[in-house]
Amino acid sequence: MSIITLTTDFGFDNWFVGTMKGVIKSINPDAEVVDITHGVRPHNISEAAFILRNSCSYFPPGTIHTVVVDPGVGSKRHPIIIKTRRYYFVGPDNGVLSYAIDSEEVEAIVKIENQQYLLAPMSETFHGRDVFAPVSAYLSVGVEPREFGSHLKEVMRLTPSVPRKISDREIVGHILCVDTFGNLITDVTARLVEELFSLSKARRLRILIRDREIAKLCRTYSEGKENELIALIGSSGHLEISVNRGRAADLLGIGEGEKFILKVV
Amino acid sequence: MSIITLTTDFGFDNWFVGTMKGVIKSINPDAEVVDITHGVRPHNISEAAFILRNSCSYFPPGTIHTVVVDPGVGSKRHPIIIKTRRYYFVGPDNGVLSYAIDSEEVEAIVKIENQQYLLAPMSETFHGRDVFAPVSAYLSVGVEPREFGSHLKEVMRLTPSVPRKISDREIVGHILCVDTFGNLITDVTARLVEELFSLSKARRLRILIRDREIAKLCRTYSEGKENELIALIGSSGHLEISVNRGRAADLLGIGEGEKFILKVV
Amino acid sequence: MSIITLTTDFGFDNWFVGTMKGVIKSINPDAEVVDITHGVRPHNISEAAFILRNSCSYFPPGTIHTVVVDPGVGSKRHPIIIKTRRYYFVGPDNGVLSYAIDSEEVEAIVKIENQQYLLAPMSETFHGRDVFAPVSAYLSVGVEPREFGSHLKEVMRLTPSVPRKISDREIVGHILCVDTFGNLITDVTARLVEELFSLSKARRLRILIRDREIAKLCRTYSEGKENELIALIGSSGHLEISVNRGRAADLLGIGEGEKFILKVV
Repeated sequence: MSIITLTTDFGFDNWFVGTMKGVIKSINPDAEVVDITHGVRPHNISEAAFILRNSCSYFPPGTIHTVVVDPGVGSKRHPIIIKTRRYYFVGPDNGVLSYAIDSEEVEAIVKIENQQYLLAPMSETFHGRDVFAPVSAYLSVGVEPREFGSHLKEVMRLTPSVPRKISDREIVGHILCVDTFGNLITDVTARLVEELFSLSKARRLRILIRDREIAKLCRTYSEGKENELIALIGSSGHLEISVNRGRAADLLGIGEGEKFILKVV
Repeated sequence: MSIITLTTDFGFDNWFVGTMKGVIKSINPDAEVVDITHGVRPHNISEAAFILRNSCSYFPPGTIHTVVVDPGVGSKRHPIIIKTRRYYFVGPDNGVLSYAIDSEEVEAIVKIENQQYLLAPMSETFHGRDVFAPVSAYLSVGVEPREFGSHLKEVMRLTPSVPRKISDREIVGHILCVDTFGNLITDVTARLVEELFSLSKARRLRILIRDREIAKLCRTYSEGKENELIALIGSSGHLEISVNRGRAADLLGIGEGEKFILKVV
Repeated sequence: MSIITLTTDFGFDNWFVGTMKGVIKSINPDAEVVDITHGVRPHNISEAAFILRNSCSYFPPGTIHTVVVDPGVGSKRHPIIIKTRRYYFVGPDNGVLSYAIDSEEVEAIVKIENQQYLLAPMSETFHGRDVFAPVSAYLSVGVEPREFGSHLKEVMRLTPSVPRKISDREIVGHILCVDTFGNLITDVTARLVEELFSLSKARRLRILIRDREIAKLCRTYSEGKENELIALIGSSGHLEISVNRGRAADLLGIGEGEKFILKVV
């Protein structure tokens, strides 16, 4: 088995992703390419990092996770391979892989240097095709990471958004992203919510966002009434603000980066 | 061979579908996942039902058709498996599978209950990942439907849009959906058109929609002149209103649900 | 190995592409379908031709490249197969395959006529499903092109956009398309730029577009400053006008078809 996943900001309306798949199949006809998404907003490294973190661990051991969100393509940022106990990660060393490896055991980091595994002539503007696709394909046929270049000690890390604690009962959280359904996914984890309840012996949660107050912590979306803002713990283990069959993002008129106050009472 | 098709409203810009594929490949590395679409409008059960009905029968026998358009996720609607003579259908019991099975011979309906085949811990908000993906994958390795839970006698049925007959020569039809090209697909079937002609001995068809009249029943889109509204029998066996290289939906300024009068004269 | 690539204007929100894949897998369960894109703008034959040309040669020999951008579906344009030394191309004879075969050695052109390899009943509006999918699948199991119909001498050719030479130092170029990142891809090739420099012994390039002047020929996007228009040779071997982490198309407010002057000085 050799699965290669792709996560990019290449969009869906052009030849970029299809070309990468052609390169992969030319090197390893047996590789199976699985798209995670190609709809990362252009150049949005932290969005891609969050998407990869939420999905990578559901794949079988041995999967090669390849990410190309690479505004610095051709510049001095290195293309890298990270081998963890379970997976390989391939992408530019710009932080895009850093959330994913937080919960993996890193075994090796390699700078991709060996021209033998790259397409020639190599463009300076499309490393998805000329670097990341062939390297992923060669990994999938069993080429060892060390064959691709020299070892690195560290990779670039993104600074994740984290809630700011005001008291044992109150924090300031942030909207991380808006999903397809208009749900607002926050940087408040299920664990942090539990901790607040347990420290404070409080029973109820209250969220203040814009001029609205949310007092209902639900288990499912369908517990909300029409146009009612609710909170729940979403499938990635983060607190979400939602509307049953509606779009919380539109109802509140807010998006990524917005702050809110969460208290337990 | 074990093909699993996916039809969802998850969109293309996130990790939802990729994660489902990871779950499937972790259980059955040999499963082949084929996307029908992930662009169903959020929560639009009847749209998904229509899409599945138009495509499912073109797949080889044994295919597992999995649909996740599930606004009631985590609530009391059941996740189900329907085994027909040719296929398996997997999804929530909210009507989304009901058009597809109209033309299949149903052999068994099973309520998905057996925790052994679900992901643990199971979220209440992402059954695509935690219920429908693993169940589809276990079906694809040969687990019998009865192993997943108890039998059900019936499934929820949607009430399909049907034209209303005014006379032997006249009906009121409805727009079912607008396709990529702006064609208006109606609930008038080829069979109904034939029936009207045969009962009335009429020769020509006339459609009154908004303030426009369409008098041309074509065989192909390209028979229409520039900006001319035409009617034809589309590839799903339904009457369509179209414009050659143009968008009928935009020209008429209408969409899903709109009524029109069809007469034979 | 039997790879079938698909390039269409069917979009992502319906059953069209999924249905084609069902037809293919029903005929050849071992065929591997790779999407190039389904986001060609509706009826845009030259866009599809350019996309195919930019990607097809990265696939392994034996690949079947199938393109369905077919505004004349059901009319007298022929469905064709083109066998080249390395690939098969399948699509309507409306020019959509013509850029791709410019750099391939054509061995045979066949008009698809043999009903045996088509779906029955055949619609006049969805040849993707009823003609191009089954023909691609039969090719992938080894049916010889000549089995599908009679030979043709020529195919329809599109007239590509080409720059107009004003002098040894000056040309008028055109914008071919805008990519996902807002880069403006032009009809000026790397070879033409080299030629201008070599003929004129000039050292620098200057582009006049709208009321702006671009004087910087970069190697990578990241060499540009914020909001600075730059030029570079893109990965398809064409001159591009770009903005580092921005959108040149939006900054200039222009798109496909726009003219510009390029001089060497």
